Amino acid sequence: MNELQIAARAGAITDVAGIEVGHFTDTRRPTGCTVVLVRGGAVAGVDVRGAAPGTRETDLLDPCNVVNTVHAILLSGGSAWGLDAASGVMRWLESQRIGLDVGTALVPIVPAAVLFDLLVGDAHIRPDAKAGFAACQAASRQPPAEGNVGAGAGAAVGKMFGMPYAMKGGIGTASVTLDGVTVGALIACNALGDIVDPDTGALIAGARTAEGGGLRDTRRCLLRGEPPLPILAGTNTTIGVIATDAPLTKAQAKRLALMGHDGLARCINPAHTLSDGDTLFAMGTGLAGKSPGMIVLGVMAAEAVARATVRAVRSAQGMTVGELVLPGAADFPPR
Amino acid sequence: MNELQIAARAGAITDVAGIEVGHFTDTRRPTGCTVVLVRGGAVAGVDVRGAAPGTRETDLLDPCNVVNTVHAILLSGGSAWGLDAASGVMRWLESQRIGLDVGTALVPIVPAAVLFDLLVGDAHIRPDAKAGFAACQAASRQPPAEGNVGAGAGAAVGKMFGMPYAMKGGIGTASVTLDGVTVGALIACNALGDIVDPDTGALIAGARTAEGGGLRDTRRCLLRGEPPLPILAGTNTTIGVIATDAPLTKAQAKRLALMGHDGLARCINPAHTLSDGDTLFAMGTGLAGKSPGMIVLGVMAAEAVARATVRAVRSAQGMTVGELVLPGAADFPPR
Repeated sequence: MNELQIAARAGAITDVAGIEVGHFTDTRRPTGCTVVLVRGGAVAGVDVRGAAPGTRETDLLDPCNVVNTVHAILLSGGSAWGLDAASGVMRWLESQRIGLDVGTALVPIVPAAVLFDLLVGDAHIRPDAKAGFAACQAASRQPPAEGNVGAGAGAAVGKMFGMPYAMKGGIGTASVTLDGVTVGALIACNALGDIVDPDTGALIAGARTAEGGGLRDTRRCLLRGEPPLPILAGTNTTIGVIATDAPLTKAQAKRLALMGHDGLARCINPAHTLSDGDTLFAMGTGLAGKSPGMIVLGVMAAEAVARATVRAVRSAQGMTVGELVLPGAADFPPR
Repeated sequence: MNELQIAARAGAITDVAGIEVGHFTDTRRPTGCTVVLVRGGAVAGVDVRGAAPGTRETDLLDPCNVVNTVHAILLSGGSAWGLDAASGVMRWLESQRIGLDVGTALVPIVPAAVLFDLLVGDAHIRPDAKAGFAACQAASRQPPAEGNVGAGAGAAVGKMFGMPYAMKGGIGTASVTLDGVTVGALIACNALGDIVDPDTGALIAGARTAEGGGLRDTRRCLLRGEPPLPILAGTNTTIGVIATDAPLTKAQAKRLALMGHDGLARCINPAHTLSDGDTLFAMGTGLAGKSPGMIVLGVMAAEAVARATVRAVRSAQGMTVGELVLPGAADFPPR
């Protein structure tokens, strides 16, 4: 199978038994949130590798801590404001009678991570609890829409030299199946760095030249001595969810998230910077009832993350918001 | 500057002001150790990303812990036995009156990490305190030898389908300089995975085909469903040191080590597996008296790590030890 054939059957995180995905995309300005629902519960872990993360319920995922099951994971725009949307996911899960039963109530467990999209349109509009609730209402087992939707609606990439030279980011998904076990990924890519095709080293999107007609190649520019724009902490970030139907312990889920970050490293350059809050969750539903082992699962996770990240950017559509122009990779360079 | 020109001036970790490197290579079987000395002391951090690490004095590097200065970092073969070599580095530093002065004695601070090379020759021969002492005696400001020396002497790569199909690993170095600030890396590569040129996606070394004349492409084999050999934890590992003459806090040193792992992810596939103890140290001597900022330093670190890893494998010489044949990348595939 060649690369094109692999790409043609990219799959989706919803190929994983037990996983549903729903987007809420704000119609007022480009922002939104995306929920990964797992009604039957899943064992989860997280690896926070960026230096400027915005997260919720990640300490609970520590293998030393006691709660073993999550019911959903939320990815949101809106920077730290977007964490609010997780409350809406909790309320929707409660309405479905899903959550940790503490006797007097249900407590749905909803880890969340956010990305910064407050430079794209009116920064006072950001995902809230209603947005999280709406994302749950929209959730299904269908392959989720990609590009400018949900948590990827306001995402941009290639921002090292400033927003005037950036391109549109987005959200993407992919999956890898081996002998009845699937690993899928859903990635909202809002990276400071450029996006690279890891199979060829070629740039897919990133910081554009001053004339706007080509890509600068951020890594080589920096290594030649061109200074980056002074960058506010946390004004970027790639976030995502890895899911598998293999059974995982919490420690194994954390290892899968960790190996998933290698997928980001291979297609984002630079990744994990001081201005990215790069965070990946991983979860296992166990519904496949078997596993190819953690080494193979890790390879599948890194692969699914890399393909989903490339798809996030390849499926992003160019947009203009006020004076800000963000071309999409599909129609760049302009013909 | 094109890729060839970049490669031609790869540089070395000893380009960093204040850094000396010494190898001890055992003549009895392929193993050894490598010391990175910093007589004037450096602020250091570590990021342990592999699942099967062998380390010493890494807790001390936590930014919350108090000791702020290290005097050397040791990389060694011999699996956990090789940690012994750090005692020899401590003794040599004491003989030079270098160490943390606790009034009654000097305590040299020598973090260390090891790799597993006990499948290459007599496993009862491994670096000890004498080996660490000898590495210090051999240390200098000269660019260190690369390939089958020091901690890289017994290294191998491409072991997913067993040692009969592996190739020789080694140790390599590279540096990047920008406006008077240098970041260098020294990497001993003994990876389970294959080695990839991150600029082209092409394989450089790794698991060979059953006939031995080509490379299998471990990642694609696994993704097609070929099972890996059952692999003992910790029988692989890539370890290294990143050094800069920029000033760093302990927290910044840890971030530099973390971003350095992206360099490993880009040229080792898979990296950070259950059977790799991948560990990178980073340290700042501060002798440059300035810094381009952590985002640029991180890009420089990832780049130096990737180039040093590629050099480690490209400079490795093929060897035969008993029935074990490990071809080097330079003369593979055989003509």
